[in-house]
Amino acid sequence: MRIVALAGGIGGARFLRGLKEAVAPGGDPSPSAPAEITVVGNTGDDIHLFGLKVCPDLDTVMYTLGGGIHEEQGWGRADETWSVKEELKAYGVGPDWFGLGDRDVATHVVRTQMLAAGYPLSAVTEALCARWRPGVRLLPMSDDRVETHVLVEDAEGRRAVHFQEYWVRLRAEVPALAVVPVGAEDAKPAPGVLEAIAEADVILLPPSNPVVSVGTILAVPGVRQAVAEADAPVVGLSPIVGGAPVRGMADKVLAAVGVESTAEAVARHYGPGLLDGWLVDTSDADAVPGVEAAGIACRAVPLMMTDTAAAAAMARAALDLAEEVRG
Amino acid sequence: MRIVALAGGIGGARFLRGLKEAVAPGGDPSPSAPAEITVVGNTGDDIHLFGLKVCPDLDTVMYTLGGGIHEEQGWGRADETWSVKEELKAYGVGPDWFGLGDRDVATHVVRTQMLAAGYPLSAVTEALCARWRPGVRLLPMSDDRVETHVLVEDAEGRRAVHFQEYWVRLRAEVPALAVVPVGAEDAKPAPGVLEAIAEADVILLPPSNPVVSVGTILAVPGVRQAVAEADAPVVGLSPIVGGAPVRGMADKVLAAVGVESTAEAVARHYGPGLLDGWLVDTSDADAVPGVEAAGIACRAVPLMMTDTAAAAAMARAALDLAEEVRG
Repeated sequence: MRIVALAGGIGGARFLRGLKEAVAPGGDPSPSAPAEITVVGNTGDDIHLFGLKVCPDLDTVMYTLGGGIHEEQGWGRADETWSVKEELKAYGVGPDWFGLGDRDVATHVVRTQMLAAGYPLSAVTEALCARWRPGVRLLPMSDDRVETHVLVEDAEGRRAVHFQEYWVRLRAEVPALAVVPVGAEDAKPAPGVLEAIAEADVILLPPSNPVVSVGTILAVPGVRQAVAEADAPVVGLSPIVGGAPVRGMADKVLAAVGVESTAEAVARHYGPGLLDGWLVDTSDADAVPGVEAAGIACRAVPLMMTDTAAAAAMARAALDLAEEVRG
Repeated sequence: MRIVALAGGIGGARFLRGLKEAVAPGGDPSPSAPAEITVVGNTGDDIHLFGLKVCPDLDTVMYTLGGGIHEEQGWGRADETWSVKEELKAYGVGPDWFGLGDRDVATHVVRTQMLAAGYPLSAVTEALCARWRPGVRLLPMSDDRVETHVLVEDAEGRRAVHFQEYWVRLRAEVPALAVVPVGAEDAKPAPGVLEAIAEADVILLPPSNPVVSVGTILAVPGVRQAVAEADAPVVGLSPIVGGAPVRGMADKVLAAVGVESTAEAVARHYGPGLLDGWLVDTSDADAVPGVEAAGIACRAVPLMMTDTAAAAAMARAALDLAEEVRG
């Protein structure tokens, strides 16, 4: 079974870990029907810091699936040290709000060096994954530079800031007026992305941010259409539970694009042209009729990823719904 | 009093610390005759590692005079951590023989970013020194790229290797046939270098490596001539004590340029056209007549830099000899 997932950072990575467990319990794939998972990762939150190319979402997926993630934090490396960051601060070189650990820096150094040598991001990601062995094929959504900017307005006036500045430095506390994936319109899907989508047996939208993670991937010309036209059933999982994001501040960027922070509104935002099935949390069971009325099969199951077993159960529910809508 | 010193790494840096103490005991310059020290640093051992520009000698001077050096080691940072190096090894990315600590990496990241933004190395060095406050004006010998390569020959055949590879990886154990400062002939002295030399009251050659440190600086077109023609007395200190280098493997590169590893031979290698005075260690007192016969004033004083006080005594002896030869 070929599964394609469009993933953002922490939520996507944890779901993918559950998905791997769901299709290959204990890491032991069924020899009769081995699943092959292709992850199309969001690169809209990539940022150049201190001359280094940082790909937060790709790295979160790679570290989480490869066993190097800082578990409690959800991003960055386990057993991290912070000497580089301390020194940059001592040099008075900013920004200082980004969590740039020493182990993480090594990843960025290797990536930056390979990019400077002319390798595309997809090849660099493959090279980094040769170490991490995430157990999935991890593709950046595009080899081209796309940077999500957020139009904000506060006492300092109206201005566009990089998504990371909005998210990490401003903690999404400044009103966001618009979210723009700068460069997306000229970006091409990375090699293999459209093929994987076209050949997929199931396409999953993990409970990642619908605007700045999955939305950005879909904004790469050709990707939304490929997903919409794919033969495979497309099933998503709501990142909104009980009217609030499970983690992160998805409600803020949903507001910026005029979408209510409810499980049903997000399903309608993706739309029946894209989604065949949608999972909402059991606490949002009353959203099921509304989603189904929009033409999207909907089930209510527990959507809190308290551990890998819970994420695996979510993945199984998504795969079950995919089989159901496949008809 | 304006003092110019042409310095390499560890030996140069420790001597300079003594020189600072000699001209301003306890860090308190005499208000009647404040000394201003300009250090022209060797950049021939600079190397690009993992896309980062590393300037070992400039950094050793900066860290040593700025209080950040790893004392016992003589290079690199105190309280260093090694996460980046561990990770690069885990990625299988080489070379792994260079001591690249995390705190040190931050310096290289800042430098590389500034160079990429278009600043010359001299401006970058000044910016880095704004943090370290080394108490001297530290100038790279040139803003142009010069890289010392060593022609070696062993079982693997005859080949040119970067000086760092020869020095650090091969530990100078492979016979060196020649030492070539690649790019030197097209390099220009960094802004301020020739002016500082021309306006100096004293020019000092610390007990740095005469070939790959001081020799490389002198190889930048215009520098040797400026030193030779300067009004100021030029006094050097022998890095060879009792027929062997005090530290490092200077004998190996001296052999490559056909110079014996003796205090007298090094003085004759610099020559009376350059040197007005030369200090040898008390154990080499028998070299004094030979050096003086070559037309260079020579004194025998203790030249082992066991601590800053010893280095300060050496600096005072050098300044005294400068006054003596000034006549």
